[in-house]
Amino acid sequence: MNKVGIIMGSKSDLPVMQQAIDILKEFDIAIEVDIVSAHRTPEKLFDYGKNAHTKGFAVIIAGAGGAAHLPGMIASLSPLPVIGVPIKSSNSIDGWDSVLSILQMPGGVPVATVALNGAKNAGILAAQIIGSNHSSVLDKIVAYKEGLKQMVHESAKDIK
Amino acid sequence: MNKVGIIMGSKSDLPVMQQAIDILKEFDIAIEVDIVSAHRTPEKLFDYGKNAHTKGFAVIIAGAGGAAHLPGMIASLSPLPVIGVPIKSSNSIDGWDSVLSILQMPGGVPVATVALNGAKNAGILAAQIIGSNHSSVLDKIVAYKEGLKQMVHESAKDIK
Amino acid sequence: MNKVGIIMGSKSDLPVMQQAIDILKEFDIAIEVDIVSAHRTPEKLFDYGKNAHTKGFAVIIAGAGGAAHLPGMIASLSPLPVIGVPIKSSNSIDGWDSVLSILQMPGGVPVATVALNGAKNAGILAAQIIGSNHSSVLDKIVAYKEGLKQMVHESAKDIK
Amino acid sequence: MNKVGIIMGSKSDLPVMQQAIDILKEFDIAIEVDIVSAHRTPEKLFDYGKNAHTKGFAVIIAGAGGAAHLPGMIASLSPLPVIGVPIKSSNSIDGWDSVLSILQMPGGVPVATVALNGAKNAGILAAQIIGSNHSSVLDKIVAYKEGLKQMVHESAKDIK
Amino acid sequence: MNKVGIIMGSKSDLPVMQQAIDILKEFDIAIEVDIVSAHRTPEKLFDYGKNAHTKGFAVIIAGAGGAAHLPGMIASLSPLPVIGVPIKSSNSIDGWDSVLSILQMPGGVPVATVALNGAKNAGILAAQIIGSNHSSVLDKIVAYKEGLKQMVHESAKDIK
Amino acid sequence: MNKVGIIMGSKSDLPVMQQAIDILKEFDIAIEVDIVSAHRTPEKLFDYGKNAHTKGFAVIIAGAGGAAHLPGMIASLSPLPVIGVPIKSSNSIDGWDSVLSILQMPGGVPVATVALNGAKNAGILAAQIIGSNHSSVLDKIVAYKEGLKQMVHESAKDIK
Amino acid sequence: MNKVGIIMGSKSDLPVMQQAIDILKEFDIAIEVDIVSAHRTPEKLFDYGKNAHTKGFAVIIAGAGGAAHLPGMIASLSPLPVIGVPIKSSNSIDGWDSVLSILQMPGGVPVATVALNGAKNAGILAAQIIGSNHSSVLDKIVAYKEGLKQMVHESAKDIK
Amino acid sequence: MNKVGIIMGSKSDLPVMQQAIDILKEFDIAIEVDIVSAHRTPEKLFDYGKNAHTKGFAVIIAGAGGAAHLPGMIASLSPLPVIGVPIKSSNSIDGWDSVLSILQMPGGVPVATVALNGAKNAGILAAQIIGSNHSSVLDKIVAYKEGLKQMVHESAKDIK
Repeated sequence: MNKVGIIMGSKSDLPVMQQAIDILKEFDIAIEVDIVSAHRTPEKLFDYGKNAHTKGFAVIIAGAGGAAHLPGMIASLSPLPVIGVPIKSSNSIDGWDSVLSILQMPGGVPVATVALNGAKNAGILAAQIIGSNHSSVLDKIVAYKEGLKQMVHESAKDIK
Repeated sequence: MNKVGIIMGSKSDLPVMQQAIDILKEFDIAIEVDIVSAHRTPEKLFDYGKNAHTKGFAVIIAGAGGAAHLPGMIASLSPLPVIGVPIKSSNSIDGWDSVLSILQMPGGVPVATVALNGAKNAGILAAQIIGSNHSSVLDKIVAYKEGLKQMVHESAKDIK
Repeated sequence: MNKVGIIMGSKSDLPVMQQAIDILKEFDIAIEVDIVSAHRTPEKLFDYGKNAHTKGFAVIIAGAGGAAHLPGMIASLSPLPVIGVPIKSSNSIDGWDSVLSILQMPGGVPVATVALNGAKNAGILAAQIIGSNHSSVLDKIVAYKEGLKQMVHESAKDIK
Repeated sequence: MNKVGIIMGSKSDLPVMQQAIDILKEFDIAIEVDIVSAHRTPEKLFDYGKNAHTKGFAVIIAGAGGAAHLPGMIASLSPLPVIGVPIKSSNSIDGWDSVLSILQMPGGVPVATVALNGAKNAGILAAQIIGSNHSSVLDKIVAYKEGLKQMVHESAKDIK
Repeated sequence: MNKVGIIMGSKSDLPVMQQAIDILKEFDIAIEVDIVSAHRTPEKLFDYGKNAHTKGFAVIIAGAGGAAHLPGMIASLSPLPVIGVPIKSSNSIDGWDSVLSILQMPGGVPVATVALNGAKNAGILAAQIIGSNHSSVLDKIVAYKEGLKQMVHESAKDIK
Repeated sequence: MNKVGIIMGSKSDLPVMQQAIDILKEFDIAIEVDIVSAHRTPEKLFDYGKNAHTKGFAVIIAGAGGAAHLPGMIASLSPLPVIGVPIKSSNSIDGWDSVLSILQMPGGVPVATVALNGAKNAGILAAQIIGSNHSSVLDKIVAYKEGLKQMVHESAKDIK
Repeated sequence: MNKVGIIMGSKSDLPVMQQAIDILKEFDIAIEVDIVSAHRTPEKLFDYGKNAHTKGFAVIIAGAGGAAHLPGMIASLSPLPVIGVPIKSSNSIDGWDSVLSILQMPGGVPVATVALNGAKNAGILAAQIIGSNHSSVLDKIVAYKEGLKQMVHESAKDIK
Repeated sequence: MNKVGIIMGSKSDLPVMQQAIDILKEFDIAIEVDIVSAHRTPEKLFDYGKNAHTKGFAVIIAGAGGAAHLPGMIASLSPLPVIGVPIKSSNSIDGWDSVLSILQMPGGVPVATVALNGAKNAGILAAQIIGSNHSSVLDKIVAYKEGLKQMVHESAKDIK
């Protein structure tokens, strides 16, 4: 079973991206975390994107804020599915910039975009992608969803 | 190799969703097309979502416009990866409604959102998801991207 | 006289939804509060929506944030009037996501949408709906509005 | 059984508002149509709003575009439930102006807002409000929803 | 020389509207401050709007937040120039609601809209309107602008 | 009685600005029309703004599109009330650019902003400003509003 | 005197980008036009960006639509000033996507962004950048602006 | 080698604009800082804009918030390249006002716009403009970018 690459444009993105790391560890899926900046380390970006599919990665999760080019450039360079996490950074215009920079990719080069700051969902989506070919992971997704359900039922009891 | 389910909220979504159908046929990936409306056929929605992973589907592509609940509800019901296509329908507020209704899913229930009317990219993403476990499909993605490159090189020659 | 169902997607929505509870208690209208998550408890959603009109409910108030599907799905499942309360949750894009996900319903399946975080108005609207057939409740609405008027007159005196 | 008042700010709103008229006729609910402009006929607005609940109306549907004040002013004047239809008029800023002018009412004075140009849904919502106290109307809503379902099933057959 | 009416929808608007009061006092222009709520005191609104031009008012400044109907309704009722101040209130959607509700008035009924929370500018504009017929007030405006200029020149010296 | 200056940034703005010209002629108010571009004729802008109040103008109406600086720069240069008309030009971002460039003026320098393309209302507002000191013009405004009312009453008869 | 590189993401961007070509020809500045797609020809992008400053370019103009990564990636790779032209392409969300993807670059990597579809201004800006070191080009800019002024004066004569 | 003019509309813009000052000092490029308000000191604006190119300036950086007219008016008056910095000031509508007022300039008068509060990038862009004709400055840009790269590599080591 292949691993998931988790990359982000800057160390300041880590508090958001940690949620992807945590949930994938919970699912016992191997990950590799790195910082790759489309704008500051274009050579590393190039190298990462061109070779990921030959290095045992099944999916790449890429998080970035502002004019977020990291997810789209990795998607340009790699044949693997790329999940993009828009991050609401400090001088963002309410997050619209990163959402639109990641979502509105041209025909031919998709990025699987999740909600603003939605790194947890990026991790779950990566697990589902792996799960679509590994029934043991699919079973974990089913169990995870069952857990969510139980938590809602508990809180419904509290509220009544 | 599992098939891809392509569903949409209304027959009027077909011109957009056809692009997903066409590109997946180009990749020789089996598809099954259906109309499932979250708001008009909730029972069918439930049945579809609950059982898709037991019926040979690897990925579901769901397209909808306006207050688009179809992708998110399928994601709620199924452990499979769900790709959402926001569609700019007639009374849409410039497409923002379908984009935000599909993208901004709560923690635990991701939808892999593509660009507004981006059904072609939804199809390619589905192929990439399958390709992350089937090297023959991955090879087709690599070839497809090579084709895109050649087309740009051709048009660059024209322009000079 | 039938009761009002007040549901929300998560316990974290309670501080906002409490305003609907309080105002309906003030009008002596029976309520029943529950947590129903479209994305985490789809079976409960289904059961709630299919049966509400046979269990003595006159109106359903549903509050949710982000890609808010709860009000629209209840409206899909129930013939009763459904009031939707968009909630500005933590990773919301300024509330636009929940507003548009609730408001922009397709033809055939209305949701009576109130202002962002407008749970108090949802409660009053529910009372007005009941009041349109029960003159004792209508009288309370008239009195309530008279009270609002007096408060403005008092504050106008203060300011002069 | 009381009737539904359907008012609009200008004759140019009729093509949109006609959908409310048509659907209520389909449900055999009595209606009364009028033009009432908050900005051009404020006296008529006042008279209409103050007296509607004494003239046999159960619900008021009010449609307006731009800085749409008609629904909110009727809600200010009447204890009845008021349904607001935002209309995308010619110099509208993409409809945002009418949506926000109708939706974002202050605490104490709700307007049940439907989608942009959603007059059909306003009619159905009015029927549901009446139906919450008249089982014969509720039955019609149930049948109407059944009809929507059948239409989707038909179009699903076509598409396959 | 006629006075300026300053009204607002709620006492909570006073901190913003105080800036209009202060600047008009600085210009020695008579003012009269009141609270008039379009949604809570429609009779007072009506009375105020219908009679302002017979009671010695030259201009009305009206401030309101959310679905702000006060400026537009006064403009509907009065032949006087009405200045609207959009106020960013607590549950506002970033102020867009009050801006659009005040600005986008239909043909025939203008509201002179100033910036979000721009009550100071509303006061200056009222003075300019009076000044366009009273040269003593016009002179004060000229002097006031000269003062602004000097302040900038002072701060430019500081910065160098 | 002083005249109204009507200026615009480009001849292409004339179809919109013509509405201001027409309504002011209807009110028998003297006007003077000119093209003054903040970005292309800054010297003319300066001359116009610095001297308007000494040349018999009571009010200036300025229309412009895109990054519309004309109304604000005239307001910077002149002590007279300045009415700004945002114009939706060809490469405008849905008119938001001109609306915000005109509306959001800093403290000290107001522009009386009207609706997008609202030149007719700019003309009426100019008449109201003059009318606040000339009862004959005020009477015309009252009569004009009476005319609007009659037109609505006529169309209400048609619709019934 | 160095030349200006004009690149665009797709041949469909040519009608907009032609305006940059035309104006630079008018200024007798050497240009070189090419198609470089960040998403389809990443190798060409890299090669272009890494070497432009060694190949006699003074400035790069890059136009792209949607999630426009071309200007920002060139800015990442080249030490030269890069001018970005947001293009409103067919499935754009009103142009917001390309504007924000180009404008909101992170600290360290600026893109000089011009208006939506503003390729003409991109050309003029490139000429100004060259002109800031070549007085003959600066003189042409001065003359060009003088020409704009004359055109406005002509149209002002027409309108009077 | 010519100097860079850095101007801002108000002293309150200094905390943002300081970043442009700092980075240009780091590049050993001569600067001159001033406060010039389009709305409060129009004569100074005029003088500054008309003469900058004869006083040894190569580039002007202009920062302003709200309805930001300073960058565009300087661009109107000067043949030099003008860099505009949109500033998110206190009553800004989330920064959209200053972004659009600076970006959406009409054909013929470009402003090189950088990100919201992006004064650092404005400084770097000014250096790049000078660098496009001075290889010593270009070398500093290359070195600066190399430094950014090293910082990312360091933080990537930390994270692993």
